[in-house]
Amino acid sequence: MAEKHGTLVIKIGGGRDLNHDAIARDIADLWHEGYRMVVVHGGAETTNIIAEQLGHPPQFITSPSGHVSRRTDRKTLEIFEMVYCGLLNKSWVERFQALGVNAVGLSGVDGRLWEGKRKKTVRAIIDGRKVLIRDDYTGTVEKVNVPLLTALLDLGYLPVLTPPAISYESEAINVDGDRAAAQTAIALAADTLLILTSVPGLLRDFPDESTLIRRIPAAQVEEYLPVAQGRMKKKVLGAAEAVQAGVGRVIFADGRVEQPVRRALAGEGTVIERRG
Amino acid sequence: MAEKHGTLVIKIGGGRDLNHDAIARDIADLWHEGYRMVVVHGGAETTNIIAEQLGHPPQFITSPSGHVSRRTDRKTLEIFEMVYCGLLNKSWVERFQALGVNAVGLSGVDGRLWEGKRKKTVRAIIDGRKVLIRDDYTGTVEKVNVPLLTALLDLGYLPVLTPPAISYESEAINVDGDRAAAQTAIALAADTLLILTSVPGLLRDFPDESTLIRRIPAAQVEEYLPVAQGRMKKKVLGAAEAVQAGVGRVIFADGRVEQPVRRALAGEGTVIERRG
Repeated sequence: MAEKHGTLVIKIGGGRDLNHDAIARDIADLWHEGYRMVVVHGGAETTNIIAEQLGHPPQFITSPSGHVSRRTDRKTLEIFEMVYCGLLNKSWVERFQALGVNAVGLSGVDGRLWEGKRKKTVRAIIDGRKVLIRDDYTGTVEKVNVPLLTALLDLGYLPVLTPPAISYESEAINVDGDRAAAQTAIALAADTLLILTSVPGLLRDFPDESTLIRRIPAAQVEEYLPVAQGRMKKKVLGAAEAVQAGVGRVIFADGRVEQPVRRALAGEGTVIERRG
Repeated sequence: MAEKHGTLVIKIGGGRDLNHDAIARDIADLWHEGYRMVVVHGGAETTNIIAEQLGHPPQFITSPSGHVSRRTDRKTLEIFEMVYCGLLNKSWVERFQALGVNAVGLSGVDGRLWEGKRKKTVRAIIDGRKVLIRDDYTGTVEKVNVPLLTALLDLGYLPVLTPPAISYESEAINVDGDRAAAQTAIALAADTLLILTSVPGLLRDFPDESTLIRRIPAAQVEEYLPVAQGRMKKKVLGAAEAVQAGVGRVIFADGRVEQPVRRALAGEGTVIERRG
């Protein structure tokens, strides 16, 4: 069955406007058809809401180069774990179980599934001044525990993965979910990495959805960067990296619609691949 | 290595006064000595605190027979998952990872690890009147996914398990952690089920800790029930059931002390076994 379709890694964004039911149904259908799949999910929007409710509202920091990221002190990390690993991961697993898919939810901490470097210091601009933050728990996934994923897949389980990852010093660290998904797709030599978000893909003229860019050859990705907005720039660069590292193709597609996964696999969305 | 020591299931209670560092260190040491172990943890006290903070304070219901249990509507279940599966499970896994133990945290929903019956209705006494509650998500573990646990153990991972479980209809359900641990010990034919709580064991004259009962033959457990207080009654009965179903012995021991696991295995605490 694995041979029939190859491996598919699906990253589900953390936007609350995604069509969770439709995404789960599509994934379950494809799973029953014999696709070998790994799911990665986000949860930023829900984390912001719960953090507010717990009286520890989200803070964002801007790096000297203008990159915005979540300030992750230990308390934030714990809230992050509550929402990503508790509320959302178990909700996805329960949903898949109800659709007959034997899902297993894991964070990157479990079995050192996603291991990487913690940033010892984070440079930020606060009130116009450069500040060095030392108690931030963020980092980047560098290693994926492929034997654990392969063992679960071979036993018939659908892995449902979520940040945080774990540092080489065994601290839980907040990592970018898209990047973690890309590392997973690379490590599994996936045919396809599908990234579902709240937009139809890369738009030539954001937010005009009729200006969707359908194909980007990985080698020409630099030409498309000027039109990418905010986080999409990082996503597109990450996608090109993944393709260059051996992933068949990366698709950015709309997670808000009906049959979001099938439509994406049929070519809706923005496809980044080795050959245009 | 498994042959050397047999299987040990350790249930860590949800009391915040347990000595988490000492428990983790003991478990890590035993793991490195070659014990085959499964950890199950609780989290009731922390759940109560977070539920208050989220404006959905814990509610407890009393059955017509006087049994008190947590009212688990869907919102409570979600908070429960945040605390048990998110905050606490990942904290335990991180702790074990830092001690060189490759832990993997799973709930009973993951891989249908703990499956059982959801109570379709819960009978309660509210303001002196009998009430039937239909939207409660509680139940009992009846089946344990032994192949998944065995696969993880054989691959060198320490399973760290936590409620909720999953119903036959694929709903996440709140279950008693001691009972889930006992079912796990039975399913694995464990030599020892160790239950760490905030008391030294069963006390003949509660709360006088000098009146600790050291041995209870499983066949004579009924004689000891009159001295058991509150939840301890249920724990002792469950322990006798586990022993009768094939677990070598069940030990209730103090989780607040130094070297809590080693001391329990050396005979401190209350030991329930087939032969007195």
